This record gives sequence, structure tokens and C-alpha cells, in this order.
Amino acid sequence: MLIDRLVKRITTLSAPIVVGLDARLNEIPAYIKEEAFRKSGRTPAAVAEIFLNFNMQIIDQICDIAPAVKPQIAMYEQFGPAGINAYLQTIAYAKEKGIIVIGDIKRGDIAAVAQAYSNMHIGRVDIDGEKIQLAQTDFITVNPYMGFDSVKPYLSDCKNYDKGLFVMVKTSNKGSRDIQDILVSHKREFFDYDEHPDIPMPCPSCRITENLAPLYAHVGELVETWGAEFVGECGYSNIGAVVGATHPGEAAELRKFMPKTFFLVPGYGAQGGSGKDLKDLWAKNFGAIVSSSRGITGAHQSEKYKCDDKDFAKAARQAVLDMKADLEEFLP
Amino acid sequence: MLIDRLVKRITTLSAPIVVGLDARLNEIPAYIKEEAFRKSGRTPAAVAEIFLNFNMQIIDQICDIAPAVKPQIAMYEQFGPAGINAYLQTIAYAKEKGIIVIGDIKRGDIAAVAQAYSNMHIGRVDIDGEKIQLAQTDFITVNPYMGFDSVKPYLSDCKNYDKGLFVMVKTSNKGSRDIQDILVSHKREFFDYDEHPDIPMPCPSCRITENLAPLYAHVGELVETWGAEFVGECGYSNIGAVVGATHPGEAAELRKFMPKTFFLVPGYGAQGGSGKDLKDLWAKNFGAIVSSSRGITGAHQSEKYKCDDKDFAKAARQAVLDMKADLEEFLP
Repeated sequence: MLIDRLVKRITTLSAPIVVGLDARLNEIPAYIKEEAFRKSGRTPAAVAEIFLNFNMQIIDQICDIAPAVKPQIAMYEQFGPAGINAYLQTIAYAKEKGIIVIGDIKRGDIAAVAQAYSNMHIGRVDIDGEKIQLAQTDFITVNPYMGFDSVKPYLSDCKNYDKGLFVMVKTSNKGSRDIQDILVSHKREFFDYDEHPDIPMPCPSCRITENLAPLYAHVGELVETWGAEFVGECGYSNIGAVVGATHPGEAAELRKFMPKTFFLVPGYGAQGGSGKDLKDLWAKNFGAIVSSSRGITGAHQSEKYKCDDKDFAKAARQAVLDMKADLEEFLP
Repeated sequence: MLIDRLVKRITTLSAPIVVGLDARLNEIPAYIKEEAFRKSGRTPAAVAEIFLNFNMQIIDQICDIAPAVKPQIAMYEQFGPAGINAYLQTIAYAKEKGIIVIGDIKRGDIAAVAQAYSNMHIGRVDIDGEKIQLAQTDFITVNPYMGFDSVKPYLSDCKNYDKGLFVMVKTSNKGSRDIQDILVSHKREFFDYDEHPDIPMPCPSCRITENLAPLYAHVGELVETWGAEFVGECGYSNIGAVVGATHPGEAAELRKFMPKTFFLVPGYGAQGGSGKDLKDLWAKNFGAIVSSSRGITGAHQSEKYKCDDKDFAKAARQAVLDMKADLEEFLP
């Protein structure tokens, strides 16, 4: 199962690390950009070529030390069709190199629409009987705000194609508290289990009963139940959760009542989280993978990793090794 | 302002209607598909051509009776770069015909990522100093789960380019209750107004104070405050809310404490909502625009509008006129 393969790669490399590929023009060395701009002008097509060139060099340097990459689709989508093409080609190249790919798409919509997103990102799209796989993504991130029926279509494709999800539970940004932290009353009548026969009842040890609890805890509990059918040999499920590194207390709390849910942890590095913050997060088989984007792909621009422009990907490699050391220091 | 232009078009046409352009191959007449498949095979490029051809014919038939169209990006995105191209060209064609376009994208992510989505969909993307507008969308739908800092980047582009949002508050699907209906305690300490000096304090008449209220009401109240700076002459703001037609009670309740927020109302027709259900929704200047997709673009496939394949767009036109009559009957 996918989650077992992820855990195995993390364990083998002793690196619970996913490298965020959030393509940013201002992070890419001038020599790469100038060549493409000369050829194709300041166009989306040039940008697509630049992103792919940059990403491929990064992937070449990190594929033997990082188990996974996480391209953020927005950074590509903003350049239109050419950008989406660079996103897909980046994923294909990473897969070629044996890396697990988490597509950071954070989609969320009603079932018929979710099915379309699922077709594109983890399933197959049907063109008059011709089934086509457009993206080789392994996991995608999804938004739970619209409820279970908006997540269900992805679960079918997870089953059919051994794919996985990371459902947003508690995100790394400060504003996450505006809605995710609001206190909720988790009374049974507000979730109709009779109408969702495929979801098990909340576990008897559930801490959210009559009392108020933050919304993210309620969502976390739902995600744990959604993943029940997808648990691999490693003890975790293909249905994971996004839990920000910038909220170490909340992450450790969620860990307790989401024992089978693997965590995708953004917010390390540039967003402020450190290895020390994560010390209470870890569980058996790590239980989490920590994401860093700018801290790795933009390392060559920092004082610490200053280097010749052409060596930007080597700087990224060193940043991954340093991140690994920082995390290892606080592993149990 | 954009919202004034929308209200003016609705009033002039006496039709609070937005036609959903949710491209579906099985809804498109065979003669359109066969031509493209013959030319380009069963490929995403053929599908893009089919969608654009179909949408243009629909737009030609409804542009003088419907104020707006709402393409659902997922239906295009699932066909990759070619699909995104068809999405952008559909929008450009609708704008050429003077129709207001609501891009149904439901994006939601941290600020830096939201900025990228905003660049693409309502702003400009910057290629080494070259500012390019890729989408001519007027409004986009966005997901509020990540809080205010995830919505703020769109607000800047709304101001700079006179664009608008519809923020998801209470969606039309049944599963919306799993999270949106959960009861929350709206205590002041869980929203730090000091840290958001640009958001006004909740209005004194706010009904969500010490007592429990559904989450969507809390989100609705936030959206009302986010739009305060964007109110046009019509009394509504460029920052609207998505409120499903399938929950008439909730919509009427939200209307009361969201007086300046225009509603985008999905769920009419195929999803079950009717003109009668919406009778308590309306306010001055309508206050809402109701969306129908399959009920209009798929009309030619129903018993009622059965016609020659080539007349599919005329069937769509008749479905808009009938929807208008159904809504009018219950307008105040």
C-alpha cells in the first residue's frame, strides 16, 4: 500500500522530509531564466520551461535523500495551461526518479466536481471510453469544509489506484485559528451516522463529547474515521491529515486521538517551525512527514548556503541534510 | 463597481440567474464530439475543442437573457492544460458577449499561495516585470477554512482590478452539515480582532454571542465584515457568499445578519431547489443570484425540452426563460 511505501522510504532514508516544489521565479538563478526568456520571451511557456529545468535539477540532487516532493499547484496554475504542463512534467520526472509525490492542490467541492478533480489528480479521466492518466501524483491534499460527501469520490480512487489524501485539519498559517480553532459542540445529533453507514461511529475514547472542543479536533476525528478502511501494515492509513508545524501543542494533541492517521506537517523552516517544536509529534514509524519549501529550494540565496548560481541544487541537497539532522536530534 | 454592474444586469434582464457551464462530455450532442474526435482522436485537445464549441453556442443563445455564467473549473482542469485553455477561452468569449463571469474555483490556501491563485484568476501574473492577465474572470469562489489571512490576498486584487469573491458559507450539498452545521461558541477571545485591525468588530446586533450557533453563521458573519470596504451603490459588496438553495431556512436566516453580502445560490434545479424554496431569500435589488447548470446546459436531453441535436442551445435558452418565470413567481 502507498502509505507503507511512504513509511518505508522515510525509514530507509531516516528522513521524514518532503521537499516542497513551490516554483518561484525570484528563487531561480538568472542563468536559467535568461536562456528561456531569450528563446521564448517573457511568456508562460518560458516560465514553464524554467520551472521544469529548476525542478529537475533539484530532484536529481535530493532523490536519494528525500522520500517525497510536494509541488504546490497554485505556483504553476498561475501561469495557465503552460504552468499546469510544468506541474505535470515535474511530477512525472519525480516519479521516474522513484520519489513519492504529494500534489498540494487543496481542492474541495461537491461530489460531482470532486470526482472531476479526482479523475485529474489521482484517477483516470474518461474521454468517450478512453481512460487517460494525466497526473502521476500519489497523494493529494484536500479541503474538508464541504463535508464527507465532498471527500468520498477521492476515496474511491484511493481504493482503485492505491492513492492517498492528506485532509486539511489544522493548517500552518496564523489565520487558521479564525475558523479551525473556534470551539464546537460535538453532539451526536449534528453528525448523522445513520446516513453515512460507511463511516464507523466515533471511537469510545473520543475526547470530544458533550464539551466544547476546537473545530480542528472535530475534523481530525472525522478524518481518522474516513481512513479506517485504508490502513496499511505500518499501522497508518492512506488517508492522512495536514497538521501545521507551527502549532506543536495542537499537533501532539491530535496525535493522541488520531493514532492511524499519518500527518503531513507544513510550516517548518521559512514559516517558523523547528525540529524542537516537533518533538512531541513523533510516533511509531515516525507518523509524520515534515514539509519544507523555500528553506530547501531557496537555500542557495541564503547566507548559510551561499554558492555559485550553478550549484543551487547542491545547496538544496545540503539544506535537506541539515533539516534531517535538526529533526533527528529531537526524534524519540 | 462590479457588484453594481451585476445588480444592474440582473435588474435590466429581470433574471437573478447565473448559467453554470460545467462542461460534461455526456451532455454534449454527438455531432459536436464526432467531428473533434475524428480530427484529434480521443484526446484532451479534442475535448477542449468540444467544450469551447458547446459553450460558445450556449453563450450565444443566453447572453441577452442571463446576466452571468459560472464555469466550474474542475470540469476543465480534469483534462489538463488543454482543459484549462478551454476554461480560459470560454471566459474570454463570455466577456466578449458582455456577460459577467463567476469562476467557480473554490480555492483556499495560505497567503503566498492564495496570491498565486489570485494572480491567475482575478489579478495579473508577473513574468520578470511583464504583467499578464490570463483570466478575465469577474468573480471567483473561495474556501474560507484557512481563515482571514488566506482570503486577504484576493481582497487586494479585488480592490486593484474591481473584482469580486463569493466565499463559501453554507454549500448546497447534503454533507455540508458535517462541518458547516456544527454548533460553535462564538466567544470574542477566539477571534483576535486586535491582530486584524483591518476587520471591523462584529456588528452590535450580531446574534452569535455567548450562545451556540452553527459554524456557517460564524463564517457568514466574518464574510460580512470582510466585505465592508467593498460596498457599491446598490448596497451590496463585491465580497459575496455562497449559500445553497437546498437550505432555504438557513439562507433566509443568513440574509438577516448579512445585509450587505450578495449571495451566490447553487443547488437550484438538478440539485433539488425550486423558486418556491427561495421565496424568503430575496431582498432589495434581489440580493442573490441563483445558479443552474445541468438544468440549462443539459435541457436538450430532458423530456420537456426534447429537440433536434443541433438545437441544444435553443433548449438551454428556453430553460433559462422557464427558470426566470419560476423564480419571478415567488419574488416579493
